[in-house]
Amino acid sequence: MKHEALVYCENEFGEKDGKTANGLVRKSDKYKIVGVIDSSKEGLDAGEYLDGKINGIPIFNSIDHAIENLKNTPTYFIYGIAPLIPFLNEKQRKVIFLAMERGMNIINGLPEYFNDNPIYTDIAIRYGVTIQDVRKPPKLKKLHNFTGKIRDVKAPVVLIQGTDCAVGKRTTSLLLVDALKKEGIKAVFVATGQTGLMQGAKYGIAVDVLTSGYAAGEVENAILNAYKKENPEIIIVEGQGALGHPAFTSSAAIIRGAMPDAIILQHSPYRNKYSDYINIPILSLEKEIEMIQIFSTSEVISITINNEYMTNVELKKTIENYELEFDIPTTDVLKYGCDKLKKVLFEKFPKLSKEVKLV
Amino acid sequence: MKHEALVYCENEFGEKDGKTANGLVRKSDKYKIVGVIDSSKEGLDAGEYLDGKINGIPIFNSIDHAIENLKNTPTYFIYGIAPLIPFLNEKQRKVIFLAMERGMNIINGLPEYFNDNPIYTDIAIRYGVTIQDVRKPPKLKKLHNFTGKIRDVKAPVVLIQGTDCAVGKRTTSLLLVDALKKEGIKAVFVATGQTGLMQGAKYGIAVDVLTSGYAAGEVENAILNAYKKENPEIIIVEGQGALGHPAFTSSAAIIRGAMPDAIILQHSPYRNKYSDYINIPILSLEKEIEMIQIFSTSEVISITINNEYMTNVELKKTIENYELEFDIPTTDVLKYGCDKLKKVLFEKFPKLSKEVKLV
Repeated sequence: MKHEALVYCENEFGEKDGKTANGLVRKSDKYKIVGVIDSSKEGLDAGEYLDGKINGIPIFNSIDHAIENLKNTPTYFIYGIAPLIPFLNEKQRKVIFLAMERGMNIINGLPEYFNDNPIYTDIAIRYGVTIQDVRKPPKLKKLHNFTGKIRDVKAPVVLIQGTDCAVGKRTTSLLLVDALKKEGIKAVFVATGQTGLMQGAKYGIAVDVLTSGYAAGEVENAILNAYKKENPEIIIVEGQGALGHPAFTSSAAIIRGAMPDAIILQHSPYRNKYSDYINIPILSLEKEIEMIQIFSTSEVISITINNEYMTNVELKKTIENYELEFDIPTTDVLKYGCDKLKKVLFEKFPKLSKEVKLV
Repeated sequence: MKHEALVYCENEFGEKDGKTANGLVRKSDKYKIVGVIDSSKEGLDAGEYLDGKINGIPIFNSIDHAIENLKNTPTYFIYGIAPLIPFLNEKQRKVIFLAMERGMNIINGLPEYFNDNPIYTDIAIRYGVTIQDVRKPPKLKKLHNFTGKIRDVKAPVVLIQGTDCAVGKRTTSLLLVDALKKEGIKAVFVATGQTGLMQGAKYGIAVDVLTSGYAAGEVENAILNAYKKENPEIIIVEGQGALGHPAFTSSAAIIRGAMPDAIILQHSPYRNKYSDYINIPILSLEKEIEMIQIFSTSEVISITINNEYMTNVELKKTIENYELEFDIPTTDVLKYGCDKLKKVLFEKFPKLSKEVKLV
């Protein structure tokens, strides 16, 4: 049985910085999401607002509004916003304090670890609740250096890279894993961010809180764990940020640690400035592909599109244009599903398609 | 007046893992190095052993051997080994304990922070000495996100990149800064590793202990500090590791944070496996240059050689070959000085050479 969780996403639900809440509303293997808090969207259905599909998760005005309307007080309160500035202001802190006072356990994905701060832990003790800091990395002694053993993994490792943060890499990864499983293929997902871990990924690590000496090694270790324990036929690894991103370098560590056999590139054609860096233009798709391929010595085998700001006509036209220009299958998995991705993976890794025929 | 320091480098002096000791013996603006401990080279002159130039720094057999032979007990004891495994074993710990017992303050460049461990701090208190953990990063609240302000720096930013760890990037950086200063050019050095900081660099940060969300921002911030405070005509930034390195991704963060206007690439032609990764061949120089240029959108303007394992004849031949193959000036700054580097920098940044003519 999944424990119930309420997700806080004031003003940001459906937005880029609300990606943790957005992800949990789309897929949650670990928690049963019973509501989202965003007073600016009060009364709406979260699924309908996000993807046009009603999913019965209501959006509430406040913590007390949620508790009044729900059968039980949820077991968990998840902080569902992932901003650039990792610290909560006084008003946001009070939300966490109130959630604890109402008896909910806190799931925190920020790089500010509540358990390290007596202001939070004192309140947790007072109300008998717990705090989980999802992004807190293992202690130095438990961290793994890169070993190179990743080269012994026999299953293809496919990395879902992106051209920016919060562009849909995780969403595409999860839909692809589901689509492959439906074909009877043993696919396993390796998360590299806190949202994927909160959603219930069995394997992974939040890369952006690791130092450069260990990030590649921890990614390698997570993939090796998944490989050993699941004996998968294919491993889908979530990317972070973008290799061309001006500020974040998790991509570099993930590429080195995963040594991917193929790369799928998630891209938002109408986004022209980097998330949180509105003065810095996004690298062109052509340049990003070139950079990824040279840096990884692997190949971008498909482009997947985030259709934000696009009409259906524009989306279709863009797909046609990219397929002409880059000569690789291009799709939008939220709109059109994963058929094109499966096809290109079966072509690239023929062993997979043999398995499909046997099913 | 510089305080006296003894550098511990048992079995590793002159070797790759002894790079902190090697660096301090070559240059130390902060401490007066009065001896090195390495029983395998007892009695030798550190400068002569390292570079064939006597510098009067003796190599001792042990802590007590050093103290017996020195006029005073040195103020500082520097742990001068930088191994892949960051933890000291019991025997190595006892060396630190003995140094404290003998009244020396500890300078620790390891990612294991002694000040966080009561075993160390209890002994420090007992003997009235202090411990400085050089690599310990600032607290999260004091860390800088990348801002893009680096683009407003008017002085050229030149990055000394390398094709591996411990290949001579810092040594070349420091010699180049000295050579430029001798021409009357206001050059400033920005360190990115613990050795540079221990050597007395006024600006810099140990990048490898920062997380990928802050590493680029901290590099940018260190350069901005140097730019604001020194009003330099050129900024020389120390690189870390290699962009093609299989495990360490500090290079990526430094390139993003520094946004270099030009890159000088330090390379050891006869080294064919990565440091600490003896099963992984080093990327070819051609591929590394291609990767750096695409990733940085900057240009490699010169190659500087680490002559390890090479005869003088081989070195000369290699320089000729590289200049033919890559069509950029190639030199070995330890052997031939920085004339070629100055020339290429003056060509690339004509404002610098005007300054030289005025002097």
